[in-house]
Amino acid sequence: MDENVFKILNSGEIKLIEYIGDDLSIVNAAKVSFSSYEDNMSDKAKGLLNFLLKNKHATPFEHVVFKFYVKCPIFVAREWFRHRWSSFNEMSMRYHVPDKIDFFYPEKNTIRKQVGKPGSYTFEPFTDQDAIFDEVEYQLGLAYSISEKAYRTLLSKGVAKEIARSVLPVGQYTEFIWTVNARSLINFLSLRNDEHAQYEIAEYAKCIEENIFKQVLPETYVSWVNNGRESI
Amino acid sequence: MDENVFKILNSGEIKLIEYIGDDLSIVNAAKVSFSSYEDNMSDKAKGLLNFLLKNKHATPFEHVVFKFYVKCPIFVAREWFRHRWSSFNEMSMRYHVPDKIDFFYPEKNTIRKQVGKPGSYTFEPFTDQDAIFDEVEYQLGLAYSISEKAYRTLLSKGVAKEIARSVLPVGQYTEFIWTVNARSLINFLSLRNDEHAQYEIAEYAKCIEENIFKQVLPETYVSWVNNGRESI
Amino acid sequence: MDENVFKILNSGEIKLIEYIGDDLSIVNAAKVSFSSYEDNMSDKAKGLLNFLLKNKHATPFEHVVFKFYVKCPIFVAREWFRHRWSSFNEMSMRYHVPDKIDFFYPEKNTIRKQVGKPGSYTFEPFTDQDAIFDEVEYQLGLAYSISEKAYRTLLSKGVAKEIARSVLPVGQYTEFIWTVNARSLINFLSLRNDEHAQYEIAEYAKCIEENIFKQVLPETYVSWVNNGRESI
Amino acid sequence: MDENVFKILNSGEIKLIEYIGDDLSIVNAAKVSFSSYEDNMSDKAKGLLNFLLKNKHATPFEHVVFKFYVKCPIFVAREWFRHRWSSFNEMSMRYHVPDKIDFFYPEKNTIRKQVGKPGSYTFEPFTDQDAIFDEVEYQLGLAYSISEKAYRTLLSKGVAKEIARSVLPVGQYTEFIWTVNARSLINFLSLRNDEHAQYEIAEYAKCIEENIFKQVLPETYVSWVNNGRESI
Repeated sequence: MDENVFKILNSGEIKLIEYIGDDLSIVNAAKVSFSSYEDNMSDKAKGLLNFLLKNKHATPFEHVVFKFYVKCPIFVAREWFRHRWSSFNEMSMRYHVPDKIDFFYPEKNTIRKQVGKPGSYTFEPFTDQDAIFDEVEYQLGLAYSISEKAYRTLLSKGVAKEIARSVLPVGQYTEFIWTVNARSLINFLSLRNDEHAQYEIAEYAKCIEENIFKQVLPETYVSWVNNGRESI
Repeated sequence: MDENVFKILNSGEIKLIEYIGDDLSIVNAAKVSFSSYEDNMSDKAKGLLNFLLKNKHATPFEHVVFKFYVKCPIFVAREWFRHRWSSFNEMSMRYHVPDKIDFFYPEKNTIRKQVGKPGSYTFEPFTDQDAIFDEVEYQLGLAYSISEKAYRTLLSKGVAKEIARSVLPVGQYTEFIWTVNARSLINFLSLRNDEHAQYEIAEYAKCIEENIFKQVLPETYVSWVNNGRESI
Repeated sequence: MDENVFKILNSGEIKLIEYIGDDLSIVNAAKVSFSSYEDNMSDKAKGLLNFLLKNKHATPFEHVVFKFYVKCPIFVAREWFRHRWSSFNEMSMRYHVPDKIDFFYPEKNTIRKQVGKPGSYTFEPFTDQDAIFDEVEYQLGLAYSISEKAYRTLLSKGVAKEIARSVLPVGQYTEFIWTVNARSLINFLSLRNDEHAQYEIAEYAKCIEENIFKQVLPETYVSWVNNGRESI
Repeated sequence: MDENVFKILNSGEIKLIEYIGDDLSIVNAAKVSFSSYEDNMSDKAKGLLNFLLKNKHATPFEHVVFKFYVKCPIFVAREWFRHRWSSFNEMSMRYHVPDKIDFFYPEKNTIRKQVGKPGSYTFEPFTDQDAIFDEVEYQLGLAYSISEKAYRTLLSKGVAKEIARSVLPVGQYTEFIWTVNARSLINFLSLRNDEHAQYEIAEYAKCIEENIFKQVLPETYVSWVNNGRESI
């Protein structure tokens, strides 16, 4: 299963644990309407798949289901969990004290300015990317280390984990299991692998799109892209 | 896969097409909270499974997913489709004209009187079950055959399928694909394999419970029964 | 409240029972992102509403909620209940025996031929619409009356309502309460007031769109139409 | 509307913005099954309400809908947003820079030790509550102030808000609009106003239960309590 583990950002991870279904099972879920079935991904079957995506007949895509393990910063997880037609189980800081806490630090070339107004933000690199990188590393490192120290001090005094965690930043990595059907995954990719999405969650979405979605559902992927990568 | 096909009522059918997950994957979805895992269904793992069901920690059960083919009367399907955390694709009489339409006829020993008031209905057999069986067979047969004849006459005149179907009874068999996670399946079984459920849908629920749920998730099944077969 | 009752098809009905929210509340749900609010539907507020619909920022539309009473044929209700982000309570033929059963009969000018193949069906009038109308009236009337008679005969013999109903056709009118938010309603209208939808459910969707959605959310309506009436 | 604003924890808030429905509308949603209605909360109507809760006939409770404004710490919001049959719009730190950031500090008498093992944790006061209070105030204050300073420094250098926020702790207050039906609210209260819930989210749940749910749906409240405060 190791070929299914992908590294994202400075400490993130995605792993496809298991899945059911394939392109053909989407076609055949649609063909229940006619009480008939296809044996293989013939041109006719591909045509039907394209028709489904073009006309947003979305329910047949719900019969393909993926289960992932994800490790990402809390600020990424908070966007991820807004996708409600999904199942999540996450690490809980009410119960668990990590031996070592992983924190998010951006890669040098991804540190960016935010320009413009809400609804039309754009992002630009800095003129001196080395200098800003040093500053970001320093400020993040300072805040993270003081926070973790306060957290561990409170734990050492016996304060309940669920109170002590209050100081931990949203840049902390968390981990969760995510089960999601192909329809809901398409909607996730449409929103999160998009120029309006935050770069960090987009990295996860891109990885899932390229390495998992495209591999498991190659014909669906082609039709979805050809039809504009829209939500369904 | 034929060992996974089960016959229900006079013409019904359930088939498990595929699934992901097992008892251990439920335990491990819960253990993400602690960022740790179990290797096998040890006594400790069974204890956790029981704790989850007893305390209605329901989300770990969402990571086991079943895909079924179901053939049942429309009046059964209408109750089935009320379960919204589920995915369905159904045969459509807007598009499909069956060569032969299957209709529901009750087994002789299942024909029943409805006694009492709403909220406390009970069902009783007839004193002369042979006589009532003949009457039911006759009345159903008459109505079904006239309806089907009207349907086919309208089709032969060129009337759109979606209008012609208006005469077809809810006793007609339909077919659908149903994808559902174990949490939602447990809630289906809790409601539909219950003394308040209509006998005909309960037959489907019983079959799924005995032949599929109990086989795929034996430890979950035992804990769920021991904790009162409640919804979660 | 009578001004909110609309008649559909030969015996159908829609009534808006109550609702919460308006265009401004959608704008202000979106503006929570910025922790700021608008006092009225200024041009800026209208611009934001348009931005939300154009870019499918859908969640702010979930805070407007409508509650309807609907009376429609079962074949229409079956399509309606596929919309899962909705709440339904429906008349039950397990408990209720109507004194008089209403059945669906199409208006003369709506009887149609179905031409072409699945995925590209079109519908056409008949050359002799009077003749086909007589035939449809006759066949529907025959099947409906035999079915109702069989149903009442079985009831008179004491057979349980839930069995006796098996003969009743999907052309029977049913009634239900439907609570739905504006996002889910938009998706309903996008799919059901569409040329691919069955004419009969489209009549309901049109009525809701024109008489209710457009009245309660006039600015949302304009933006949605201008952006192509898409689902969100 | 000010009488509907409630203060929670050191800086939290709940406000009922609007709602539709009442006890009687739940009864009448259930009575659609029989195509009949009640005019007032007679003893018979109360009996039906009790029957619904006792037997977990949950859908009639979905036709009462509440819209709230909530201000709470992020660690509380993260638990809140796990309730998927709900609609949320939240303040976004991708777009918004608060002039003043509110942080969570526990009341002196609520600081607690966590005793025992997962699944059977209990919480106890400290022997010297004054001393631990000083320590908690100090550690939280230190971590919060360093984090906020790092955040504002990064912003002042032009770093994108969505990166700079990485250092902000889950003890930061956030705000959101929450629209939820009475069924889903009951499930929230059942889980979150419970001895296993974290004290801080339980404070919100208690406030909603006492000041809003009980006031808007008095008969539902009584029946729900009498039937064990269970989820439905």
